[in-house]
Amino acid sequence: MNHIKIIAFDADDTLWVNQNYFDEAEYRFRELLQEYIPYEDISHELLKIEIENMHLYGFGVKAFALSMVEAALKISDNKIDQKIIGQILELGKEILNKPVEMLDGVIQVIEQLHGKYKLIVVTKGDILDQERKLRKSGIEHYFHHIEIMSDKQVNDYRKLIKHLDCKPEDILMIGNSLKSDIIPVLDIGGYAAYVPYKSTWAHEKTEDKITSSRLIRIERITEILPYLI
Amino acid sequence: MNHIKIIAFDADDTLWVNQNYFDEAEYRFRELLQEYIPYEDISHELLKIEIENMHLYGFGVKAFALSMVEAALKISDNKIDQKIIGQILELGKEILNKPVEMLDGVIQVIEQLHGKYKLIVVTKGDILDQERKLRKSGIEHYFHHIEIMSDKQVNDYRKLIKHLDCKPEDILMIGNSLKSDIIPVLDIGGYAAYVPYKSTWAHEKTEDKITSSRLIRIERITEILPYLI
Repeated sequence: MNHIKIIAFDADDTLWVNQNYFDEAEYRFRELLQEYIPYEDISHELLKIEIENMHLYGFGVKAFALSMVEAALKISDNKIDQKIIGQILELGKEILNKPVEMLDGVIQVIEQLHGKYKLIVVTKGDILDQERKLRKSGIEHYFHHIEIMSDKQVNDYRKLIKHLDCKPEDILMIGNSLKSDIIPVLDIGGYAAYVPYKSTWAHEKTEDKITSSRLIRIERITEILPYLI
Repeated sequence: MNHIKIIAFDADDTLWVNQNYFDEAEYRFRELLQEYIPYEDISHELLKIEIENMHLYGFGVKAFALSMVEAALKISDNKIDQKIIGQILELGKEILNKPVEMLDGVIQVIEQLHGKYKLIVVTKGDILDQERKLRKSGIEHYFHHIEIMSDKQVNDYRKLIKHLDCKPEDILMIGNSLKSDIIPVLDIGGYAAYVPYKSTWAHEKTEDKITSSRLIRIERITEILPYLI
């Protein structure tokens, strides 16, 4: 691993809390819609619409808010009270206004790796939202830049490698999503460190049967340090 | 200008048609809302909400669609027919599904500059939408990468320069917005070529009193070639 030059950090649920805020918004969305269809079907309908819209909207809070509005119209057969549409827009804005809650050990890891590697943030959220979080995190100055990707599949990582003018084996990606942060990076020949987070978005769930000599599995982000320093 | 190494192209209304599609959607939005307030006030209300939301939503089609929904609720005092909310979401999706109509001379310019400079796209739209347009344009392979910025102010261009590991005077930005593509680039010491487009979004309008030895004013994008080759 001593040829690694660039360490790429996933942002949401790797550097800071994120999924909880979406879960919270979705919980309130279900409450707003429960008079129309059974409570337990609402998340399923929402996810279906999110996935249908993904090729147009991509990822992030704005995509989520637009899909919630669309799902509310569909679930209620256009009978939803207009005021509730306004409340749904507010659910999206609330996520965008959340404080930034750093995950344990992140600051320590970044401080220790800074100066020894080029550190970047690699995320598929909305750029303005991710910049806001990075600025509020107090660790922005340690990073070379934020890389916004439209998706995190093999081809997107190939573009990233081209953009960084490096080889796949020069990069280590650290993240909490096997599907987005780990598998495609291993597939192109890079290194990956998997740090699971307690909650995973349904769309990111995947079976974990991966083995690779370029994969490091850790429980806490600080456990990456002995591999790198 | 012979130290210029990087040529940065704004995307919308510099490489391809964009504002027309937003204007068209806004025209239809006004038609949907005209029973509630005078027709000529609708765009004003919408722009006000877009500007209020900018610090949270940033730019691009998703931000526009969310602000249209919010404006419809506000303009109608929550009386808007729910089906019309669905139609407003469709207006956003239609923009995201538009064909890519390249502006005159763009392909010729890119083909001639490729190999002589590092070419990048610098835009504040939604990444997925901009990648789609670049892919459909047929000129994607000429570009080193797309740079998505949350805004195009002086500080954003400083971040770009840091990210590109270059000096401000190494870069020439070509674009149609004085406010976003030209003034901040001149302010940090870079070069800029201004190619106006026939229609400008109200938020991008600014007074044109700029003079600088690092500013090139052209009528068509092909007029930049004699400066660079």
